[in-house]
Amino acid sequence: MSSVWGKNIKVSVFGESHGNGIGVVIDGFPAGLAYNEEEILAYMKRRAPGGRFATKRSEPDIPRVLSGIFGGYTTGAPICAVIENTSQRSSDYDLTVPRPSHADLPAVLKYSGFADLRGGGHYSGRLTAPLVFAGALAVTALKNKGIHVGAHLSSVGDDDYGCFDPMKVDAELLERMKEKELPIIDTGAWERFADKIETVRKDGDSVGGIIECAVVGVPVGEGGHMFESVEGRLASILFGISGIKGVEFGRGFDISRGLGSEMNDGYASCEDRIVPISNNCGGIAGGMTTGAPIVFRVAMKPTPSIAKEQDSVNIHTGENVKLNIGGRHDPCIALRAVPVVECAAALAIFDILLDPPAVIE
Amino acid sequence: MSSVWGKNIKVSVFGESHGNGIGVVIDGFPAGLAYNEEEILAYMKRRAPGGRFATKRSEPDIPRVLSGIFGGYTTGAPICAVIENTSQRSSDYDLTVPRPSHADLPAVLKYSGFADLRGGGHYSGRLTAPLVFAGALAVTALKNKGIHVGAHLSSVGDDDYGCFDPMKVDAELLERMKEKELPIIDTGAWERFADKIETVRKDGDSVGGIIECAVVGVPVGEGGHMFESVEGRLASILFGISGIKGVEFGRGFDISRGLGSEMNDGYASCEDRIVPISNNCGGIAGGMTTGAPIVFRVAMKPTPSIAKEQDSVNIHTGENVKLNIGGRHDPCIALRAVPVVECAAALAIFDILLDPPAVIE
Amino acid sequence: MSSVWGKNIKVSVFGESHGNGIGVVIDGFPAGLAYNEEEILAYMKRRAPGGRFATKRSEPDIPRVLSGIFGGYTTGAPICAVIENTSQRSSDYDLTVPRPSHADLPAVLKYSGFADLRGGGHYSGRLTAPLVFAGALAVTALKNKGIHVGAHLSSVGDDDYGCFDPMKVDAELLERMKEKELPIIDTGAWERFADKIETVRKDGDSVGGIIECAVVGVPVGEGGHMFESVEGRLASILFGISGIKGVEFGRGFDISRGLGSEMNDGYASCEDRIVPISNNCGGIAGGMTTGAPIVFRVAMKPTPSIAKEQDSVNIHTGENVKLNIGGRHDPCIALRAVPVVECAAALAIFDILLDPPAVIE
Amino acid sequence: MSSVWGKNIKVSVFGESHGNGIGVVIDGFPAGLAYNEEEILAYMKRRAPGGRFATKRSEPDIPRVLSGIFGGYTTGAPICAVIENTSQRSSDYDLTVPRPSHADLPAVLKYSGFADLRGGGHYSGRLTAPLVFAGALAVTALKNKGIHVGAHLSSVGDDDYGCFDPMKVDAELLERMKEKELPIIDTGAWERFADKIETVRKDGDSVGGIIECAVVGVPVGEGGHMFESVEGRLASILFGISGIKGVEFGRGFDISRGLGSEMNDGYASCEDRIVPISNNCGGIAGGMTTGAPIVFRVAMKPTPSIAKEQDSVNIHTGENVKLNIGGRHDPCIALRAVPVVECAAALAIFDILLDPPAVIE
Repeated sequence: MSSVWGKNIKVSVFGESHGNGIGVVIDGFPAGLAYNEEEILAYMKRRAPGGRFATKRSEPDIPRVLSGIFGGYTTGAPICAVIENTSQRSSDYDLTVPRPSHADLPAVLKYSGFADLRGGGHYSGRLTAPLVFAGALAVTALKNKGIHVGAHLSSVGDDDYGCFDPMKVDAELLERMKEKELPIIDTGAWERFADKIETVRKDGDSVGGIIECAVVGVPVGEGGHMFESVEGRLASILFGISGIKGVEFGRGFDISRGLGSEMNDGYASCEDRIVPISNNCGGIAGGMTTGAPIVFRVAMKPTPSIAKEQDSVNIHTGENVKLNIGGRHDPCIALRAVPVVECAAALAIFDILLDPPAVIE
Repeated sequence: MSSVWGKNIKVSVFGESHGNGIGVVIDGFPAGLAYNEEEILAYMKRRAPGGRFATKRSEPDIPRVLSGIFGGYTTGAPICAVIENTSQRSSDYDLTVPRPSHADLPAVLKYSGFADLRGGGHYSGRLTAPLVFAGALAVTALKNKGIHVGAHLSSVGDDDYGCFDPMKVDAELLERMKEKELPIIDTGAWERFADKIETVRKDGDSVGGIIECAVVGVPVGEGGHMFESVEGRLASILFGISGIKGVEFGRGFDISRGLGSEMNDGYASCEDRIVPISNNCGGIAGGMTTGAPIVFRVAMKPTPSIAKEQDSVNIHTGENVKLNIGGRHDPCIALRAVPVVECAAALAIFDILLDPPAVIE
Repeated sequence: MSSVWGKNIKVSVFGESHGNGIGVVIDGFPAGLAYNEEEILAYMKRRAPGGRFATKRSEPDIPRVLSGIFGGYTTGAPICAVIENTSQRSSDYDLTVPRPSHADLPAVLKYSGFADLRGGGHYSGRLTAPLVFAGALAVTALKNKGIHVGAHLSSVGDDDYGCFDPMKVDAELLERMKEKELPIIDTGAWERFADKIETVRKDGDSVGGIIECAVVGVPVGEGGHMFESVEGRLASILFGISGIKGVEFGRGFDISRGLGSEMNDGYASCEDRIVPISNNCGGIAGGMTTGAPIVFRVAMKPTPSIAKEQDSVNIHTGENVKLNIGGRHDPCIALRAVPVVECAAALAIFDILLDPPAVIE
Repeated sequence: MSSVWGKNIKVSVFGESHGNGIGVVIDGFPAGLAYNEEEILAYMKRRAPGGRFATKRSEPDIPRVLSGIFGGYTTGAPICAVIENTSQRSSDYDLTVPRPSHADLPAVLKYSGFADLRGGGHYSGRLTAPLVFAGALAVTALKNKGIHVGAHLSSVGDDDYGCFDPMKVDAELLERMKEKELPIIDTGAWERFADKIETVRKDGDSVGGIIECAVVGVPVGEGGHMFESVEGRLASILFGISGIKGVEFGRGFDISRGLGSEMNDGYASCEDRIVPISNNCGGIAGGMTTGAPIVFRVAMKPTPSIAKEQDSVNIHTGENVKLNIGGRHDPCIALRAVPVVECAAALAIFDILLDPPAVIE
């Protein structure tokens, strides 16, 4: 279903950028999780616009919980959170010139003009806000089990800020990243990043980036056969994030460039357990967790809204036109996508952990 | 569900490498498709072992249709095809030393020793055979609608054999690739490929590769919101193919390295239609098809079974051991995965095209 | 999923009786349906409390649409409607004595005390209000296709008010029923009904009833194999309505009491079509529609909340206690369930009609 | 999906009555269940034709397990079982005169003549054989947890053979019923039943019946909100059994004829537990189990194949014709459906028990 995700939980996202409100229903979330509003608002703030490196638009995205939380705990009933759209815009709207690399053109054709595409409508990156609400619940639930999810900006454009060490990444590092205004590993790169953003912004342009995410503490043997692989389930939610064009696990595309003898992850005995001695596979073999950190990267395209002149067509007249998109846009949407990727990953891992037992009880 | 995939059709794969048989049930496949056994066998042959560059093992994988085909056409009832495992092995089997980067270790732990892991069991690449059967039906159905799916080996190890031109790739090229023993674009690279395979084989090693796939002829506006994106649905089946560690659409990870002004796909008017003037997004914007060819690449890891000595552990004694895997293995499983990727893609696109109408009728 | 229903559309209901709000997200509803607020409010009013025969509680259940409707039409994006709970109650609540035949006891045990059970919580009949919102959209959409859904109160307690003639029930009759304060066929029974309700109310008791529903205008051949039968899909949503304990199609349980020669529905030729000459099967054979009216009945239990003294247990002390439930309750909840059954049926039929084509196009 | 059922397990049934074979894939069945072939064959034998009261046709329905069982235990991988159709019929077949109350007419129209309807095709009652295979696995798994499923023939035509006492029905009684050639409670009714069958058979007619099923030993609090109710999930699989036209829980339709004060199930304290003191609700309140026996009844229509002359139409010429169906048919298919209902119920209950935990762990 279009905006419904999950097997054991069902996350149903709704809303349009300029409609009355956006939100999410999370069905099947177990009862008994202490609702940590502070942690959830902190997550939402990381995603929200307004930071130094992001768009200056201000959206005080405060979710209002309508159901599913009672007395400070999840109740087991569906959780609904709504974010009102405070700045209502006119309902007069007519998509005349589709913006390149946005959903505009396919959406207007697919829905024969009925889609509400103001500000991107349901395709807007703004719809990641309710996903973050849902994901932050999963982050909290996982943390209670000793499982930590975290991400960082691994590169922006052609500038590389480093990757996690897939054998050593740990909860401490992942949590530390969340405290940073700029979640990058190479702290010396801070200035390079600021310069790049400033340049891009001045040019009215945008730039893409790669987000790397890790999940540590997941027991061995989670996930499953074929289409229940950890990879497939993570990818199925990650590609729901607007702008993601690639997902790779472990050494990913690089693994295809190597030999089996280089890329295989052997085993060694360690304190009564059998543990991988390398982690080229991103913590997943045969679709199941190996006990090593789960590590993956996603490629985020440059924000498609740019101030530079672009080629498009007037859909009413069919004439080729030059399009100039006004307003303030994120020079690098990948930065704001970092917590979104974490949240999507947390939902996927949480859903996987709710799978029925593999062995009959 | 572990080995069940699809929204409008349900593809349910079963079987273990050394069990009685493997096969697939395809539920929800519409009636009225002429059953082209020849085309299906041709697909299965491309995947089968025994070619010049593949393992010398011989598996005459002839599917036997049990249901769902009658009088030469699909009937609308579930289609079941079974491939008998002719060479039955002993049922005595005890996994003692898990093979690195195989499912062995997580599976034996997950299933408390109950999993049938002989030859990889249900995790074996052999299970792609029924997926090819199902996919070949979808390939035929799509072809009847003027939609062509094809793939090629884009690189092996660090050797690059070229990519599709995402604006020009067409049915003719895609079909031509299927006729080739070695589906690569750069015909001059044939010898380089043969040399590499020979070297790797002699070394008892294996090598990874990248498969690029294109789908041409899909109308604009297919796919959908968030989790029904074309990317997400393709990825959800592709990661079900054993060994795939990365999926990228259009320029994929490279798109993250560029600017919006370079990567956005503008539009121009063309014979009463509005068409993209570039195709960096792989034919998908906002999760929907743009009308340009759908292009994606998958990263396939090196065959994990290699003859070289590897580190592992005896799971009974806990002792570190050196493992030597005998038998004949594919030096580059990516080659045999080319038709599998095509078939998975065809199933995903076929399933997408079966979505309910976007506008009420 | 607990409160998510549907195959082609996904209806996700949320909220608790005394929480902040209740509502529904309808995902996958096609674009282009004119949003008829008046018709929807009329449906909701039929279900709402406050009528002559219902509880005197007043709930001005006005849904607020947050998304998915724009410019007077559905947009194809998820539709969310919220009904605020205006009369907020204290969050102090402790379930001490479970009410017989309510969800109280199993819910408090299942959710270890975390469930919000104030006023029945998510199990309250109040949750049928968002279902009616969703269903009323489907009713409108079906009507546009010439398909009409309607229901009546077929019996209350041991008093029988007549059934539809399964061969003759038509749109006109179904729509006429919706105009009535008391939707019964035998207009002479109005007074008997009023007397019964009055008696039951005075006694502090409640009474069950049977609702009969028909859908006319559905083409032949809708529905499908085995678990996609029209019966199964209708039942799967109908049993989601609190209080329904039985569902039967056509002559239902009576069909089991007859002979094949009496119950089989033969065919005759009629204006180039082949039509059933009787309709004992409720318009469904082999799980598919026959073209005759779909007719089914549901058994609704008496409102479990009664003023009479009942046996229960103090769950904290374990002592047997006599329970007296105060407040004003519906003497016959079946009456208010009539539009709910219609709406559930409309959703099921609408979902069935969105199935992919049975024959390849 | 048409012939796929389940949430945590996926049961995918395939095959046509006169095709190459029929069977089932059960995906997601946990590992570690000892495969009790004898028990499974016993179940299949109860359903198979050939008994004293059934059709004399002989089908030695021996399932062949292709996958998912290894070393005597389920492996956690998909289980596939195939029943070969030994008596192959001609592939020349043309449906000319649709049989009343069969799937023939809607199926031939729905599938534009492509459906394989020989012997009923995929709609044949024969397809309950693979369902019994799957269900017998669930029966065994439940028994290991102390949960017993059993059923009996509660009435045939207008002759009533008694019902379970919903407070007293127990494992011993349920298992005893399975040993009987004629599973009825009122042993004195044996002769009446035999006479009725004989009369019906001689008349070339058929007769319907009611099957009552109970499940004992299910803990309190299983099932869930709205559409995850025990009633809804049982009904969704039961209506997949060809010929079932009604399902009622507890006192079912009778509950609608009573008062709340008569029908509510109060509670009493009993050995530290709170237990219902009556069981009018069939062991289910608020969609969840109460701890009392789950009791439901299904109405099975008379076998639609009868030897008496019936009205139909030649679909090629459009002429009204008199149809005489030859062959040997079951005078009362409800008898053979008893184990099918048990198996469907066992699958539903097993699936429910695999739900994720309601409270976070």
